[in-house]
Amino acid sequence: MGVVVSYPGERESGANALEHLIALVGDDMASVNTVILERMASHVPMIPELAGYLVNSGGKRLRPMLTLASARLCGYGGEHHVRLAAAVEFIHTATLLHDDVVDESDLRRGKATANRLWGNQPSVLVGDFLFSRSFQLMVATQNLRVLDILSNAAAVIAEGEVMQLSTAQNMGTTEDTYLKVIEAKTAALFAAACQVGAVIAGRPGEEEDALFSYGRNLGIAFQLVDDALDYAGARDALGKNTGDDFREGKITLPVVLAYRRGSESERAFWRRVMEERVQHPDDLAHAADLMRRHRAIDDTMERARHYGSIATDALAIFPDGVWRNALGRLVGFCISRTH
Amino acid sequence: MGVVVSYPGERESGANALEHLIALVGDDMASVNTVILERMASHVPMIPELAGYLVNSGGKRLRPMLTLASARLCGYGGEHHVRLAAAVEFIHTATLLHDDVVDESDLRRGKATANRLWGNQPSVLVGDFLFSRSFQLMVATQNLRVLDILSNAAAVIAEGEVMQLSTAQNMGTTEDTYLKVIEAKTAALFAAACQVGAVIAGRPGEEEDALFSYGRNLGIAFQLVDDALDYAGARDALGKNTGDDFREGKITLPVVLAYRRGSESERAFWRRVMEERVQHPDDLAHAADLMRRHRAIDDTMERARHYGSIATDALAIFPDGVWRNALGRLVGFCISRTH
Repeated sequence: MGVVVSYPGERESGANALEHLIALVGDDMASVNTVILERMASHVPMIPELAGYLVNSGGKRLRPMLTLASARLCGYGGEHHVRLAAAVEFIHTATLLHDDVVDESDLRRGKATANRLWGNQPSVLVGDFLFSRSFQLMVATQNLRVLDILSNAAAVIAEGEVMQLSTAQNMGTTEDTYLKVIEAKTAALFAAACQVGAVIAGRPGEEEDALFSYGRNLGIAFQLVDDALDYAGARDALGKNTGDDFREGKITLPVVLAYRRGSESERAFWRRVMEERVQHPDDLAHAADLMRRHRAIDDTMERARHYGSIATDALAIFPDGVWRNALGRLVGFCISRTH
Repeated sequence: MGVVVSYPGERESGANALEHLIALVGDDMASVNTVILERMASHVPMIPELAGYLVNSGGKRLRPMLTLASARLCGYGGEHHVRLAAAVEFIHTATLLHDDVVDESDLRRGKATANRLWGNQPSVLVGDFLFSRSFQLMVATQNLRVLDILSNAAAVIAEGEVMQLSTAQNMGTTEDTYLKVIEAKTAALFAAACQVGAVIAGRPGEEEDALFSYGRNLGIAFQLVDDALDYAGARDALGKNTGDDFREGKITLPVVLAYRRGSESERAFWRRVMEERVQHPDDLAHAADLMRRHRAIDDTMERARHYGSIATDALAIFPDGVWRNALGRLVGFCISRTH
């Protein structure tokens, strides 16, 4: 109790921390992939085609890894964590499918989106199918608390997505409102993915709460970094597909900070590109310049480190060991990642 | 056991049968409406606005009524049937929201659709929210079998919607394929809505199966009549908003029958309007004429009566009484309704 968690954090390469965790959960993740393949199956061929395209499109599978690692951290030795990890990935995949329809996106992770290849109709409906499948997987664990936690998370995610719609293209969005949106649309699933690991292991409330807090703060940090990377790439050419948020008029923290710290003429620029959606070829580069001038990316990363620290401290009640260490190092990965 | 169910069926006015059931479930339905209002609430204003518009748009609330009446038929005296009825209505409402996005519909029940008023984005996301809410309501019953039945139904519905997408605009669709689609997209929820009434009442499997069969066959009959009405209105001006399926190129049974029974030049007409989607102002009236010539509407209604009879017989194992009688008369309503 109260032990200081020592983890290399940002000093080590983030990629190493991720690979370390991937290696640790390797066997479990192979089982998750088998469950995912089984549950994508349908006598309607378009379902496994479209779902398979998305499931295999190179995501990091961070969320199911969190469920697996949290369950193992809690000493769980059964099989339900595999089903729950698959359920968590299905919720995430369904959300991505619907997000791409809502955002009218053409690209995700450098690949054509499902809605571009198959159209909006199958993307909406296959999303619904995967969402239903995730509930079937949860029901298979026969654990009502798990169902309660994950169905609440699903409602919060949807609420967050609608909230984001209301803030989109509104330069009056405050940092608080931005935080509420990412807590709902991203952090709620990270938190639930971790918490259910403790629940199926039958651990006391203190450990459930600790994993919930770890996941929630890790999720906030992850999304902050995501939002920073969407502009950082335009500056240093590190990231891929940068500028998506800019083109969609999505109000993320780098924009909120640059707008609030900017001159009146800079604010007029932000209103033109984000609210009126009148964008010229050089506008993205100019936006990135303004962000650099006002330290908007740096301070977004600073906020991410703040939440990362809270995530790290949340783990401290667990005894030192391979799983706590791996989850602790994951915070460093989420912050120092470049894509 | 084995008692012949006596119900006035088509000989009575369908509207009376519906009103009879509405009166019987009145108090329970008032509780369902309270739960629906409570669960639509959100700190994100767009959610209750949009969901409220749809929930109040004049639907018959047939599905939640089935859950209430089935539970009462099984002698249930608790409160969970109210939650389940609300959950069933939320699944249905979420499906309607996504359907209208997928079909790009402008009108539903003579009113502007939510996607026309709010746009596709909120319709997709509020649909997801309602779907999540329906699972929260099911979880609140703390009954794992109910969760199993309804999560399976949700997956089957989504599968049916994707299947319908694959059959749309394909004149090669057979009556069997059409039946599979409506079994999945409509009858699965009717069946589950009835079955869970027996489950929460703790009744034996025989009664669960009977209510499942009643709901399934009633749902098939209901959808067949729906598909017939979409053309019947063009002929006798009884129905409202007729021709939606025609304009969307949806292959329903009246089309399947008229196409298969038609001459080569008639088939060329069907391919032009349904597959190539080249439609002229008089085409809907011509389509209705061809259906009359080939008895396509009459035989669709004949099929509906066939499934209606199965639904009626399924109820026969229940003792005679006010609830069995009301559910039996509902078959007559579903078949003789004009809108």
